[in-house]
Amino acid sequence: MADLHREIAAGVRLGPIGVVRSRFKEPADLPPPLFAPPRFFERSTGQIEVFPEFAAGLDGLEGFSHIIVLFHFHKAGAAKLEVVPPGETKPRGVFATRSPHRPNPLGMSVLRLLARDGPVLEVSGLDLVDGTPVFDIKPYTGRDRKSHVRTGWLRKQRRPAR
Amino acid sequence: MADLHREIAAGVRLGPIGVVRSRFKEPADLPPPLFAPPRFFERSTGQIEVFPEFAAGLDGLEGFSHIIVLFHFHKAGAAKLEVVPPGETKPRGVFATRSPHRPNPLGMSVLRLLARDGPVLEVSGLDLVDGTPVFDIKPYTGRDRKSHVRTGWLRKQRRPAR
Repeated sequence: MADLHREIAAGVRLGPIGVVRSRFKEPADLPPPLFAPPRFFERSTGQIEVFPEFAAGLDGLEGFSHIIVLFHFHKAGAAKLEVVPPGETKPRGVFATRSPHRPNPLGMSVLRLLARDGPVLEVSGLDLVDGTPVFDIKPYTGRDRKSHVRTGWLRKQRRPAR
Repeated sequence: MADLHREIAAGVRLGPIGVVRSRFKEPADLPPPLFAPPRFFERSTGQIEVFPEFAAGLDGLEGFSHIIVLFHFHKAGAAKLEVVPPGETKPRGVFATRSPHRPNPLGMSVLRLLARDGPVLEVSGLDLVDGTPVFDIKPYTGRDRKSHVRTGWLRKQRRPAR
């Protein structure tokens, strides 16, 4: 059954619709979220520049407080099925982590939308490096906000909501 | 500048790591979220079958209450930059909606993880059709749960959180 579906759905090729502008120039400039000072990322601002031919797709987004950004982990290197998260000693399945070393190098961040100036989105909460290719932007809605969240091995998480 | 980045980041090819099993066989079987009866999707259960060669990537996921699923809108057809959302009359930019007709046909749903049986995840909150190719699974954490959410044109949303 799985093989059948792999034939039917052979995959898809994605191209960027925009790019991230960030003061973090390299992955090493970004602290792992668990080790960042309190409110570090809340104060981290930057831009998403949507390419002109896609700018019409942003109309109406300015009314939303938060956006979901799907992006390319373009500096991730090889995929792994198990990774050792920062500050941990035990390997975890990559799908139980937010590691960039994924079979499909897709990242997802929820950012605060501060303003829109035509094709440029001013955002905070930015945890992405400069030049990150953006594949999609979606409005964050009440259905994305879950209650009674358990976070498994991620016990040291210091900021349960922001 | 944008052109430069488009040359550097020419895109990426994705392949499915698993497939959705759902009682919704076609998109027409799925009510638009705004028109679904209260708690309709909470009661909607199904499975995500991860292909055997990726199953090791799930280790540790069972401790999380919710998962982020990135999937292929494989029945979406042509992309559009403006769409008229269900129940609306005014066109909106596609990036201000959760429409499947996106330049990159990527979907994102947050599902409740009920149980894991090896490579099979039992989930609820399922709003996906049977056979949907899955590109990535991530744990949902406190950083994905935002407060003071404004949802722009989506004023009729009846269930602000679930």
